[in-house]
Amino acid sequence: MNDRNVYRVDLRELEFVLFEQFRIDQDLLGRAPYQQFDADTTRQMMRLARDFAYQEMGPLYQSSDRDGCTLRADGTVRLPDGYQALWNKYIAAGWGAMGTAGAPYVLGMPILEMFLGANPSFTCYSGFCGSLAEMIRTFGSVALQDMFCDKLATSAWSACMCITEPGAGSDVGNIGTRAVRQDDGSYLLQGGKIFISAGYHDLTENTVYAVLARVQGAPGGTLGLSCFVVPRYAVTADGGIGADNHVRCVRLEQKMGLHGCATAQLSFGDSGPCRAYLLGEKENIGLRQLFLMMNQARISTGIFGLGMASSAYLNAAEYAAGRVQGSGLRQSFNPRAPRLPIIEHHDVRRMLLEMKSKVEGCRALIYKLALHVSQAQALRAVPAHTAACARDDAATAVALRRHDGLVNLLTPIVKAYASDQAWRVAELAIQVHGGYGYTSDYPVEQYARDIKILAIWEGTNYIQAADLVRDKLAMGKESTLLRLYEGEIRQSIAAGADHGLLHHEFSRLGEAMDVPCAMHRRCAAWTAQGKMELAFAFATRFLESMAEVTLAWLLLDAAVIAARRLREIGSAGAQDDTPFYRGKILSAQFFVGNQLPMIHGRARSMEEADESVLQADAGIFLERSQLYV
Amino acid sequence: MNDRNVYRVDLRELEFVLFEQFRIDQDLLGRAPYQQFDADTTRQMMRLARDFAYQEMGPLYQSSDRDGCTLRADGTVRLPDGYQALWNKYIAAGWGAMGTAGAPYVLGMPILEMFLGANPSFTCYSGFCGSLAEMIRTFGSVALQDMFCDKLATSAWSACMCITEPGAGSDVGNIGTRAVRQDDGSYLLQGGKIFISAGYHDLTENTVYAVLARVQGAPGGTLGLSCFVVPRYAVTADGGIGADNHVRCVRLEQKMGLHGCATAQLSFGDSGPCRAYLLGEKENIGLRQLFLMMNQARISTGIFGLGMASSAYLNAAEYAAGRVQGSGLRQSFNPRAPRLPIIEHHDVRRMLLEMKSKVEGCRALIYKLALHVSQAQALRAVPAHTAACARDDAATAVALRRHDGLVNLLTPIVKAYASDQAWRVAELAIQVHGGYGYTSDYPVEQYARDIKILAIWEGTNYIQAADLVRDKLAMGKESTLLRLYEGEIRQSIAAGADHGLLHHEFSRLGEAMDVPCAMHRRCAAWTAQGKMELAFAFATRFLESMAEVTLAWLLLDAAVIAARRLREIGSAGAQDDTPFYRGKILSAQFFVGNQLPMIHGRARSMEEADESVLQADAGIFLERSQLYV
Repeated sequence: MNDRNVYRVDLRELEFVLFEQFRIDQDLLGRAPYQQFDADTTRQMMRLARDFAYQEMGPLYQSSDRDGCTLRADGTVRLPDGYQALWNKYIAAGWGAMGTAGAPYVLGMPILEMFLGANPSFTCYSGFCGSLAEMIRTFGSVALQDMFCDKLATSAWSACMCITEPGAGSDVGNIGTRAVRQDDGSYLLQGGKIFISAGYHDLTENTVYAVLARVQGAPGGTLGLSCFVVPRYAVTADGGIGADNHVRCVRLEQKMGLHGCATAQLSFGDSGPCRAYLLGEKENIGLRQLFLMMNQARISTGIFGLGMASSAYLNAAEYAAGRVQGSGLRQSFNPRAPRLPIIEHHDVRRMLLEMKSKVEGCRALIYKLALHVSQAQALRAVPAHTAACARDDAATAVALRRHDGLVNLLTPIVKAYASDQAWRVAELAIQVHGGYGYTSDYPVEQYARDIKILAIWEGTNYIQAADLVRDKLAMGKESTLLRLYEGEIRQSIAAGADHGLLHHEFSRLGEAMDVPCAMHRRCAAWTAQGKMELAFAFATRFLESMAEVTLAWLLLDAAVIAARRLREIGSAGAQDDTPFYRGKILSAQFFVGNQLPMIHGRARSMEEADESVLQADAGIFLERSQLYV
Repeated sequence: MNDRNVYRVDLRELEFVLFEQFRIDQDLLGRAPYQQFDADTTRQMMRLARDFAYQEMGPLYQSSDRDGCTLRADGTVRLPDGYQALWNKYIAAGWGAMGTAGAPYVLGMPILEMFLGANPSFTCYSGFCGSLAEMIRTFGSVALQDMFCDKLATSAWSACMCITEPGAGSDVGNIGTRAVRQDDGSYLLQGGKIFISAGYHDLTENTVYAVLARVQGAPGGTLGLSCFVVPRYAVTADGGIGADNHVRCVRLEQKMGLHGCATAQLSFGDSGPCRAYLLGEKENIGLRQLFLMMNQARISTGIFGLGMASSAYLNAAEYAAGRVQGSGLRQSFNPRAPRLPIIEHHDVRRMLLEMKSKVEGCRALIYKLALHVSQAQALRAVPAHTAACARDDAATAVALRRHDGLVNLLTPIVKAYASDQAWRVAELAIQVHGGYGYTSDYPVEQYARDIKILAIWEGTNYIQAADLVRDKLAMGKESTLLRLYEGEIRQSIAAGADHGLLHHEFSRLGEAMDVPCAMHRRCAAWTAQGKMELAFAFATRFLESMAEVTLAWLLLDAAVIAARRLREIGSAGAQDDTPFYRGKILSAQFFVGNQLPMIHGRARSMEEADESVLQADAGIFLERSQLYV
C-alpha cells in the first residue's frame, strides 16, 4: 500500500542559493558551454523535479521501508512494491538522463537533493549511471564507450560501484578479487564483493559493474588494483543483451534503514566465466581511475544527507506549527492560559533554528562545491585557442587551480559534515515530534535510520578527515590551498566588517577562522615531534572546525544578501518575502551565536593535546567479566 | 528463533564503582536497616543477575526485535516468542521481587543495568511493579495496600504508569480522562491514554494501572489531577482475579525500536464500567503523588541508557579487537606491512575512549544518585529516638537535606544526559563496526533504535533541563543546593591538587566548574532583564555543563583510587588488574582532555547570548514552496 507523500522541500530556498547567493544565471548559465541553460529553464526543471518527488517518489518512501527487498530462491531480487512502475515513469520523464544532458553539474544538485530527499532508496538505483558513463568516457577505449556510454547516460542500463570485500573495507589495498587476462584482451573475473548498494535487480535490462580487482601477478596493496567494467549480461555486437555473464547475488543485507535499496553480496565468476573489460589500457591504476566515481559518490552522500535533513527539518516545523501543547512561559501555571502551538516555545525554536541553519549551511556548502566543479568544467570545455592571449591562458590556469583546489578541499568536508549533521538534524526532528517522532506515523525516525549509513559508506567519515589533513592539506605543512581558502574567508570578513547589522557576527567568524589555522599548524608540529598519531586523532575535529567556519561564512554571505533585499522590499512595499529573508539573517545569527562557539571548545581540547589515544592499548578496553564466571 | 546472547557487561567495573569508589560495604551495607546485606551477597547477586542476563534475556534481544508485538482481533496482545517462558523463569528466579526485598536501592542499580542492557523491552514489563507498590504503601489506604502491594512486590501482577493522552503529552495539565465518584467511595473512569509502555499483555494474571485523571468538577490544569489505581481485572475479596474491569487495548504503536515492548493505546470504561481507586484520601494531588513513580522512572531511564551504552561499547571493543584492517600509520603505503586489528588505530581508540569514559562516567553518576537515595532511606528508617542526643538529630537532618537535595539535583541530569549520551555511544559503536554496524548481524543498530525513546519519555530531555534550572535551582537565584554541590567538587579539587599524576586534570576541573556557576548566575540576570526565555533556551546546555563537570569529577575520583591501587599492585607484584586500573586513569584523562573542554564552547555561546530564539516566529520556518506550485 502506498502512503501519502511526506517529503517537503522549499524551492524558494533552493532558488535563493542558486540565483541570489551564487548568481549562477549571471556567472555560469548562458555562456559556453552552457549557452542553452538559463534561469527560467532551471526554475522550470526544478518545479518538474519537485512535482515528480512529491507525486511519484514520496508516496513510496514509507511503504518501501516496510516492503524491503528479498532474494528469491531463483536468485532474482524482489524490490519494494511499485518500484518498477516508478522506475518506468522516472525514465519516461527523462530523469534517467539528468546527469548527462550537458547541464552544469551544479544544476543537478537541487534535483538530486529532491530525489534523494523524497526517496533515497529508489534514487540509489540510478545513482551511478552518470558517473560510470563519465568514467568510461574519460578513461575507456572507444570500444568500451560504444558498448556502455549511451546506455548508461540514459539509465537504460544501471550501474554499481564494487569495491568492498569481507576482508577489504577501509583497507582497500587488501582486495582479493582476481582478474586473469585472456588472449582477446578481456579478462575473466573471480571473486566476491559485499555491501553493493542497489547491487542486483531487474529494473533495467542490464547492470554494469565497476569492479576493483587485482590482475593475476599484480603487486599487493592499492597499487596493484585495476578497474574493470563488468556487465551482468554480455553485450552483443549490436549493443543488445547477450548471455549471462555470471554475476550472482548471494545474499542481501538486513539493515537499520534504506530497506528499499538492495544491498547485495555479489559473486563474480562462480557459476561460469565472468568477462570483464579493463578500463583504459593500463593495469594497476584502477583506484586512481575509480576516484572519479568515488568523489561524485562522496558529494552525493552529502546531498543525500542534505535532502533528508531538509525534509526532516520542514516536517518538524510543520508539526510544531500544528501541535498545540502548553502555554506561554509566563503563564505555565495558569490552567486557563491559551494553549500554544509548540513552535512558539523557545526550546522548540532553538531546535528548529539549529536544524534550519545547519540545513541551509550544508546546502550552501554543497552547492558551492558543485559550482566550482561546473566552473572548472566550463573552463576546460572552452578550447584554449579561443583565449585572446597568453595572459588569459595564465588567468585561466589560475582560475582552474582555484576551482580544482576548492573541489578537492571541500569534498571530504561535504561527505563527512553533511552526513553527520543530517543524523543530528534527524535526531532533533524526532525530538520536536515527541513520542510521535518515535513512531512510523511520522517519517522522521525513518530519516534517522536511512541517514546512518552515510557516515560509513564511500569512505568512513574518519577517512574523510584523514584525507583532508593528510592528502589535501599536507599534514599541516605550508599549504597554498589553505592559504587560498583562508584568504577568501578573510576577504568576506573585511567586506562584512562595515555591515552594521552583522558586524558582530563577522568579527566572530574571524576569531573562529583562527582555530582551524592553529589546528593545521599543530598537526605539523605534532608530526615533527613524532606524534603524528595525535594529528589523526584530531582529524575529525579539524574537519568539523573547517566545516563550521565554512558554514558560518556562507550563512553570513546569505544574510548580507537577505539584509539588502529586506531594505529593497521595505522601500517597495512588497513584503511577501520578508519572513524568508528575516529567516536567512536569523539562520546566520543563530549559527554564529550557538554553533560556531563550540569551535573554541575544540581549540581548548587541541591545546590539551591529551595523549590517551597513544597510551591506550587493547587491554584497557576488553571485558574482564570472564574472570568472574 | 532465538539468537546467541549479544549482551556484554564487565562486572569488574560495576564492582569497582560499588566497592572501591563508593565503598558501600563500609559505608552502607551491614548497618541498619541493611544489616543482612554485605559485599559477598552483593557480588553473588550480581553474578546471578549477569548469568540470567547472558543466558536467558540476551538470547531474546534480537529475536524480539524481529517478532514485535501484535494486537490480535480478540483484543489480546501477542508478545515476542519466548517472552512468557522467560517471564516465568524471571519470576521463578525471584527477580520479580528484586525492588522490594529490603535491599538498598543502590544494589538494584547493577541488576537493573544488566537486565535493561540485555533486554530492555522484556525488562519494561516488570518496570513499574516496585515503584507502584512503594507509591501505594506511601500514599494509599490500608485497604488499597492489602489489595495490591503484595502482588506488585513480587511482580505477580504487573504495573503501568498512565499519563499521556493525545492532547496531553508534555502538557500534562491538559489531561481529559474523567473520574466520577461513586457512593462506595470508588470512582468510575472514562477516557483514553496513549504511549503506555508494556501496557497490555498476559504475562501476568492482572495488570495494575496508575492513572492520572480529573475528577468530575475538579479544576483545570495540573492542580485538578488525581491519581487512581486501576486493575485490569477486578480484585475479589480474597485477593483473587474478578471480573473484567474494562481496560482495553485499542492499538499498538509501530516504533523505531523497542519492538518487544507493547506500546499501547488504552481505553478505560468504553466497553463497560471501569472501577478506579483514588490513591489516598484527597483528590487533586495526583501529580505530586505520581512523582514518586516518575522520579524512579527517570532514574531507570538513565540506567536503561547506561546498560545499552555499556554493552554497545563492549561490543565495539570486542569487534575492534577482532577486526583486522589496515596497517600502522607509518606503514600505510606498504602493502606488505602487517595488518592490524582496528583497535590499534588511533581514531578507533579515540572513539572507544569516548564511549568508555562516558559509560563509566554515567555509571558513577547514576550509582552515586542511587547511593544518596539509599543513604536518605537508611537515615529515615532508623527511628529518631535511637539517636544519642539532640546534636545527632541535627546532624541527621543536615545529612538528610544533603542526600535529598543531591537526589533532586541529579535526577534530571541522569535522565537527560545518560539518555543523550547513550544515543551518542550507540552512534560511535555503529561507526566502529563500519558497514557491519548498519546491519542486524550486529546488535549496535538496534541499540540506537531502542535508545532513541529515552530522550522523549518520562518528560522530554528539555523538560529535565527546565526542571533543573527552574525547579531545582531557582532560575539562577542564590541556591543552597548549587553551593553545596560546588563545595563538594571544590573540596575534591583541593584534595586532588597535590596529586602528581592528575594535578593538571584537577585544575581543569576547577576551571570547568566555573562554567555552570556562571551560567546559573546568567539565568538570574536574564530573568531580571525580562529575558527569561533565554534561560530556558540555554537550559539544555546548562544541564550538559553540569553533567560533564560531574562526570569529570567522578572519573577523576575513580582515577585517584586506581592510581593508588596501581602503586599497591606495583609493590605486591600481582598485576592482573593493571590494565583495568590504567584504563580508569585513561578514562579520566581522556574525558578531561577531550570532552570537558567543550564546556568552554558552551560558555562562549552563553556570552554571545544570541537572541534568535526570541526574534524567530513561525513564519520564518514554514515551507514556502506552495507559492510556487
